[in-house]
Amino acid sequence: MASNSRPERTRDAARTKQRLLDAARDEFAEYGIAGGRVERIAAAARCNKALIYAYFDSKDALFDAAFAAHVQAHLDRVNFDGTDLPAYAGRLFDIFEDDPAVIRLASWYRLERSNGPGLPAVISANQARLEKLRQAQSEGKLTDRWDATAILVLVQSIASAWATLNPEFSATTAPDRTTRRLAVIDAVSRLIAPD
Amino acid sequence: MASNSRPERTRDAARTKQRLLDAARDEFAEYGIAGGRVERIAAAARCNKALIYAYFDSKDALFDAAFAAHVQAHLDRVNFDGTDLPAYAGRLFDIFEDDPAVIRLASWYRLERSNGPGLPAVISANQARLEKLRQAQSEGKLTDRWDATAILVLVQSIASAWATLNPEFSATTAPDRTTRRLAVIDAVSRLIAPD
Repeated sequence: MASNSRPERTRDAARTKQRLLDAARDEFAEYGIAGGRVERIAAAARCNKALIYAYFDSKDALFDAAFAAHVQAHLDRVNFDGTDLPAYAGRLFDIFEDDPAVIRLASWYRLERSNGPGLPAVISANQARLEKLRQAQSEGKLTDRWDATAILVLVQSIASAWATLNPEFSATTAPDRTTRRLAVIDAVSRLIAPD
Repeated sequence: MASNSRPERTRDAARTKQRLLDAARDEFAEYGIAGGRVERIAAAARCNKALIYAYFDSKDALFDAAFAAHVQAHLDRVNFDGTDLPAYAGRLFDIFEDDPAVIRLASWYRLERSNGPGLPAVISANQARLEKLRQAQSEGKLTDRWDATAILVLVQSIASAWATLNPEFSATTAPDRTTRRLAVIDAVSRLIAPD
């Protein structure tokens, strides 16, 4: 029967893996690795829990796979531009506001996988952005007051400033989104302004 | 016997509670709430696990108690000064470098207790710092380009920029501590510089 042909089964497996990665992203963003439950991921992906171990080996490895896929999608979306960092920071701010899972996944990764092997997707993302910054510096389109690493680290932290507040803060005193966004863009502009 | 007198027992209980809070701080900084184990906390504090529930009710409540004590100690140590924010950011940077548990506890708190009741220690810490910033602004000792909340949020994020990197970043490309510290202080100086 056609539905049992090899290409069909391969497509089924790819779809199942994708559903597992999507479900894992949601589960881990909410609960982290220690708090995340493979039973819930399997149920959300409508498949058997044993398949998770067959495809991904372990909960840690499933997290790494989901996070790597997420990092790649995030990079494609954010369109890093070393020659216009205030605009980049504004786009990053919007992503953090619209999709709280982005900061949460990065935070869980830092806390729970700091002794992990290091994900190739993260390493190459860092390198690609640093190279763009160095190129902008060498073309005179970006201050060379600091090295590229410091600039990237400072811009990232400013863009994520509002997304990493303690909960009491956000609930009681945060200004509106337009004001928050302007503060981010203005802060980055000041950071890289010529002397 | 003297060792069974009421004051003696009260002091014993206070010492046990303190040992539990110290052990809880270490355990939760490393593993978070979902990953933290009350068995390990009890063992590290050399007391029975049942005492944790007798004194603190639940693992969540033990985390909140340990985190609140930590926030208070941190505030006493960092000596917030709204009229010299670059120096404050430098002190904060040093604390984050010397004691990685500080950022980790704050991150776990944000991730795992975002729907909690809100800790009075955190709320009052926020308020105290905002009041000092507003006073510095009203005395003309601090820019009023942004409101106090935005300034505090931006300064905190810059001071913690290096402590919240993804692990691959720190391992491969971070400049030395002196360079990192100068970048933080310089960035905050630019942020609040008069126009």
